[in-house]
Amino acid sequence: MEAIPALFISDRVKELIPRYQQFVREELIPLEQGAIYGSFKAHLPSLNALRKKAKSEGLFAPHLSEQEGGLGLSLLEFASISEILGQSPLGHYVFNCQAPDIGNMELMHRFASEELKSTYLIPLQKGEIRSCFAMTEPEHAGSNPIHLSTQARLDGDEFVINGHKWFTSSADGAHFTIVMAITDPENLNPYQRASMILVPLDNPGYRLIRNISIMGDEGEDYLSHGEVAFKDCRVPASNLIGEAGAGFALAQERLGPGRIHHCMRWIGICERVLELTCKRASSRELNPNHFLADQQSIQHGIAESAAEIKASRLMVLQTAYLIEKYGAKAAKEDISTIKFYVSNVLMRVIDKAIQVHGALGITDDTLLSFWYRHERGAKIYDGPDEVHKTVLAKRIIKNYSAK
Amino acid sequence: MEAIPALFISDRVKELIPRYQQFVREELIPLEQGAIYGSFKAHLPSLNALRKKAKSEGLFAPHLSEQEGGLGLSLLEFASISEILGQSPLGHYVFNCQAPDIGNMELMHRFASEELKSTYLIPLQKGEIRSCFAMTEPEHAGSNPIHLSTQARLDGDEFVINGHKWFTSSADGAHFTIVMAITDPENLNPYQRASMILVPLDNPGYRLIRNISIMGDEGEDYLSHGEVAFKDCRVPASNLIGEAGAGFALAQERLGPGRIHHCMRWIGICERVLELTCKRASSRELNPNHFLADQQSIQHGIAESAAEIKASRLMVLQTAYLIEKYGAKAAKEDISTIKFYVSNVLMRVIDKAIQVHGALGITDDTLLSFWYRHERGAKIYDGPDEVHKTVLAKRIIKNYSAK
Amino acid sequence: MEAIPALFISDRVKELIPRYQQFVREELIPLEQGAIYGSFKAHLPSLNALRKKAKSEGLFAPHLSEQEGGLGLSLLEFASISEILGQSPLGHYVFNCQAPDIGNMELMHRFASEELKSTYLIPLQKGEIRSCFAMTEPEHAGSNPIHLSTQARLDGDEFVINGHKWFTSSADGAHFTIVMAITDPENLNPYQRASMILVPLDNPGYRLIRNISIMGDEGEDYLSHGEVAFKDCRVPASNLIGEAGAGFALAQERLGPGRIHHCMRWIGICERVLELTCKRASSRELNPNHFLADQQSIQHGIAESAAEIKASRLMVLQTAYLIEKYGAKAAKEDISTIKFYVSNVLMRVIDKAIQVHGALGITDDTLLSFWYRHERGAKIYDGPDEVHKTVLAKRIIKNYSAK
Amino acid sequence: MEAIPALFISDRVKELIPRYQQFVREELIPLEQGAIYGSFKAHLPSLNALRKKAKSEGLFAPHLSEQEGGLGLSLLEFASISEILGQSPLGHYVFNCQAPDIGNMELMHRFASEELKSTYLIPLQKGEIRSCFAMTEPEHAGSNPIHLSTQARLDGDEFVINGHKWFTSSADGAHFTIVMAITDPENLNPYQRASMILVPLDNPGYRLIRNISIMGDEGEDYLSHGEVAFKDCRVPASNLIGEAGAGFALAQERLGPGRIHHCMRWIGICERVLELTCKRASSRELNPNHFLADQQSIQHGIAESAAEIKASRLMVLQTAYLIEKYGAKAAKEDISTIKFYVSNVLMRVIDKAIQVHGALGITDDTLLSFWYRHERGAKIYDGPDEVHKTVLAKRIIKNYSAK
Repeated sequence: MEAIPALFISDRVKELIPRYQQFVREELIPLEQGAIYGSFKAHLPSLNALRKKAKSEGLFAPHLSEQEGGLGLSLLEFASISEILGQSPLGHYVFNCQAPDIGNMELMHRFASEELKSTYLIPLQKGEIRSCFAMTEPEHAGSNPIHLSTQARLDGDEFVINGHKWFTSSADGAHFTIVMAITDPENLNPYQRASMILVPLDNPGYRLIRNISIMGDEGEDYLSHGEVAFKDCRVPASNLIGEAGAGFALAQERLGPGRIHHCMRWIGICERVLELTCKRASSRELNPNHFLADQQSIQHGIAESAAEIKASRLMVLQTAYLIEKYGAKAAKEDISTIKFYVSNVLMRVIDKAIQVHGALGITDDTLLSFWYRHERGAKIYDGPDEVHKTVLAKRIIKNYSAK
Repeated sequence: MEAIPALFISDRVKELIPRYQQFVREELIPLEQGAIYGSFKAHLPSLNALRKKAKSEGLFAPHLSEQEGGLGLSLLEFASISEILGQSPLGHYVFNCQAPDIGNMELMHRFASEELKSTYLIPLQKGEIRSCFAMTEPEHAGSNPIHLSTQARLDGDEFVINGHKWFTSSADGAHFTIVMAITDPENLNPYQRASMILVPLDNPGYRLIRNISIMGDEGEDYLSHGEVAFKDCRVPASNLIGEAGAGFALAQERLGPGRIHHCMRWIGICERVLELTCKRASSRELNPNHFLADQQSIQHGIAESAAEIKASRLMVLQTAYLIEKYGAKAAKEDISTIKFYVSNVLMRVIDKAIQVHGALGITDDTLLSFWYRHERGAKIYDGPDEVHKTVLAKRIIKNYSAK
Repeated sequence: MEAIPALFISDRVKELIPRYQQFVREELIPLEQGAIYGSFKAHLPSLNALRKKAKSEGLFAPHLSEQEGGLGLSLLEFASISEILGQSPLGHYVFNCQAPDIGNMELMHRFASEELKSTYLIPLQKGEIRSCFAMTEPEHAGSNPIHLSTQARLDGDEFVINGHKWFTSSADGAHFTIVMAITDPENLNPYQRASMILVPLDNPGYRLIRNISIMGDEGEDYLSHGEVAFKDCRVPASNLIGEAGAGFALAQERLGPGRIHHCMRWIGICERVLELTCKRASSRELNPNHFLADQQSIQHGIAESAAEIKASRLMVLQTAYLIEKYGAKAAKEDISTIKFYVSNVLMRVIDKAIQVHGALGITDDTLLSFWYRHERGAKIYDGPDEVHKTVLAKRIIKNYSAK
Repeated sequence: MEAIPALFISDRVKELIPRYQQFVREELIPLEQGAIYGSFKAHLPSLNALRKKAKSEGLFAPHLSEQEGGLGLSLLEFASISEILGQSPLGHYVFNCQAPDIGNMELMHRFASEELKSTYLIPLQKGEIRSCFAMTEPEHAGSNPIHLSTQARLDGDEFVINGHKWFTSSADGAHFTIVMAITDPENLNPYQRASMILVPLDNPGYRLIRNISIMGDEGEDYLSHGEVAFKDCRVPASNLIGEAGAGFALAQERLGPGRIHHCMRWIGICERVLELTCKRASSRELNPNHFLADQQSIQHGIAESAAEIKASRLMVLQTAYLIEKYGAKAAKEDISTIKFYVSNVLMRVIDKAIQVHGALGITDDTLLSFWYRHERGAKIYDGPDEVHKTVLAKRIIKNYSAK
């Protein structure tokens, strides 16, 4: 029977899913404990070998067009693949569709100059380099995207950037960043003050202050979140992405599909976590021949998780479909809905799984601890729950007031 | 933009929805306060006039085939119409697709003899008579469907029925009931002991003890729940529906689509209730020019309700689609999921609406009180939450244990 | 072992509790079904007989001083008795400590003139007459207590009152009301515009428009909520309670202890409801020799209810103690806390009880339906949850900001 | 006004609280970030200096009698102090009343031989050595305390211990452990099969396999959780604590007060976390002059946390009082209640605080991350929620069935 409704799944994806699933099971899951809890850097050779294997099997970069070396999947098609990849924290990385790179690829594909594309985008698409995205500032609430201090002043044919960013994910080891900076501070429209500028990270005006220690991990390389500084950082004016003043609009464009990617990845985590829960419950004996899975409270927890995961998947696929058909702007309500709904489902599913695992659940002997810690951000990044609920409600109320 | 995904909605239904919507708005809503809080019986003439109007507009009995006087909609197509009708407590009744009659129509259509069909089913389909369904017994937990005391003993070519039932909805004024009774008490398989038998209610062995007072209302006619007794109640053996001993299996067949009907009706209520909430919030002034709708807690409640309603709709339509394609048995997990998920959403949406309405919310000046009271049963009838969660979980755990 | 901490219970109360408990069990519970679901008026003779019995046993009016014919209990002492009485919806009425009369007694005791006391308060204390309190207006959100339209204009030595009130509880059959009306509309301080004025209800300027139908019941006499009108309603200026302009301040004084009374009554309901739950769970057989009470989900529901009830009781007693010692103003945070915490506990406890009772739970064959319907207002009246949470939070945040 | 009810607080404690509070604020909080997120071992000299200071101020070891070098506080008195100490993760450690040592001190004080006391207990009370407690086994569900594999066989005047334990908290650097081992495997009463035996950790039959990595931290010294092995580990038979076969009973005795200590520590964390929340909300600007604290959703979260913390404190103090007066066995229901109620409050309060802190909340720049990760175990250790709810419910149901 169809777990995913026929509308939401093409024949091609139906054929691809078991292939990705097998890859995740056979190649990625065995590596997880080492790469995630050990040194990610030390695992780069193995991971690169897997990227090659993915390429040779024609599975690499499912989100890119065939000309760009990918599979040419639509947003909706990629969504279902993204759920499979999300089952492992290595999934998106190995197939080169990990955040923040995928967002930068989408953005540059649409808005970067040909020169920037050939120098930066192509090697990024091939997985030869990595990138990052510098937007959030420690001094300002991220929930207000126009509240920024970083400035890029035009000096001749160069931008001179000064500012302080954090949660610049994967900055460690990245080749370039796209930075959001105020270029037109006097613009009367506060939504038209900022621009996006590409900065190669070997620039002497750039500094990685630290990999922020997050929930017990400083992390490294791809698995890290940088605090970075720009001090009189000079880049050619031609490094501008899109129009000057378009930073906020581009960020919105970047976030729409980005939230689909995140949500489907979260659903992948949920499925994996529910599987771990069921396995543990089925095998953990409380008394001779009486298992955790025989406890009604455990059963009900599993049922509630399953229901919420199903609801999540349908809503996210529906939203991907709407974005594809009508654009991200038209699907704004739907995007806000899935962002807060699915992130909360994710945290509940993980929390119940830990409870079922008992003492084991809080150790780093399983991935539950990793997800519990590192997905807590899901309710915060890309707009906290509170913001999305308000956005959604205002839209709805407006409809009704109009009547 | 599409509120209902294209897969789930045919062109025909797309065209029908606004027509039903208009009917509900213009014809039913103005009648509600009187018919629901006043005397239902006194409103029968108006309601019958509306049935005629529905027939003349070609909207009557959407669930029946065209030969039977309906529109020939599939289960999935009817689901979307059912949401519209659910917005008014009069909706399903006027279009003759109300429970318990719709369940009896489906059952008899598939399993009744030609004679029973011509005598009972045809006038039922035309809306000339009403029926009821006598299964639940006060002495036994309804959550265990094989726990019954009512017996039907074969005496020559007659069944002699003795037993005590309640929650025989709409018994008051009904023309016949279908009763679930033990016909083979010794069968080793407890699921094969009961049968379904049609009993015309002018039978001297049948008695309507009372319309049970439920949440403050005894109700009357269609809007009532009977407690009934069978005392040496004799009916022809040919009044058997389906096979002897098939009662439990038939009840399952009856319940599958029945839960789709209920769930879509609940979603209709949710939509109406959310609309009432938004209207009240937008118009209720707290301070000069500061409205309830400006309060963040109200906004977040609306956003959460909207998200849950959307999730509910997608899951129910998906389940209807699966039942249509693979049968109710194959969709058992999905049916259990929507039953407990949507009924809980319903109660949360109603409860929040009452809170937004303040003192008005607990009066009978709006329908909120009616739904708050009479939909509380949604978490109980057709299997309480606890049963459906356990059913679902056991199915899931079984999958994983197999691995 | 002590269910109620020793601090919170005097020796006298310890001795009184079992006596009240016995009265409730033996005298009130047998009357409930008839008086609550049948005609309250028809039960007045029986209830008056019980009041006499209460007097003869020295249990009547526990909240009044001995000179006033009561037991002279302190607020804290009365709180524990109030929990016992709350177990029956007839409890407070029979002992003449029911809202809204108890609030009026407290108010008049402290702020009424000697003349008003002798004419109105004394017969009220004796249970010879009943009263009501007219504050809420349908046109204004009750959550903003200074938003009132009812006006009382001084014309010579008379007030001329014009206005429209609802939720004037127990107006049907009451002898007088205290009405909150604007007497000084131009006062710069909006909290000093209203006054409280006593109005005898045989006044031709007063009209009981209707007993509002609430959750299915219009009710009658004490068990009713009136919508009332004042049209050029003239009363002597000396009917003023307290100072002119003190209406808001007096309302606050009235509400502080009033919330203790409500909360303890709710806890009494909770205890009774939990008892019903346990009894039903212990006696309802699912399969031979397997009872509802053996289900883990039922057990956990009972445990959660028990925990929340215990938390509620301790917080309310602690608040009563603080009010007694430091005054209602000083205990404002605590009062807000119990108001929203306990009302939510109440609704959760009742809702779980209904679920455990299954179909029976939604009938009027038990009191669960009465409480489910008529206590829903608990989250609304005397300040909705939202207001109390905001009040509490602002106080707390203020403390921290000060640092 | 009194935050803690007078019954629950002696004059002595009232005088002590501000002294402990000052110590925590001035001495401990400044050390936290380094000692908790850095190397705990490296901070031992500073912490030992603080222990000396605590001794010189007469605040050391508040739970011990004066003869033992403590303050001689009762369980109830110590509870209020424990809340203050709980505000810092260094609090209990510095005052030498940290788990698991405090539990071992209580146990040995009551049940150890004089010889064991002089050799082990006295230096433990002085803070010269640390200890641990080896009970939980990875192979068995901790929720079933009689399900153990570790055996201690008597061989002459020695026990020979073989087994595998984990979550032997603070094993790293400890001087001795008390191990729970089966000494009488054939005993018909499964609750009388295990004994407690003291094992000095320089024993060659003992091995610390690893400090388990928990939620991202292996930790070290006191801040660690060991996995340990006993292989033919020989100790004198006189190292038995209490009677042979009394292991389970002693564990119960150990856990009763232990849960008071934990719960009050959790409440201390809650208070500190709520303070951090309020400070962040008051200072974090969303728009010019509009702060997080002005958001209603933030306010309501703070109010709910405050209510739940208040409820928690009252219930725990009440339970401490009951244990003191009637013994831990009599207070079993109360102990179960606080265990599951307060641990859930704790996790909700922390989770809301993280949300209010936004991105900062998931970094290790505040202690929120430490508590979020390391207190997740609170719902698991010393009996998971599910077990305590079942225990409580069965007790309650039993009462009602008896009626």
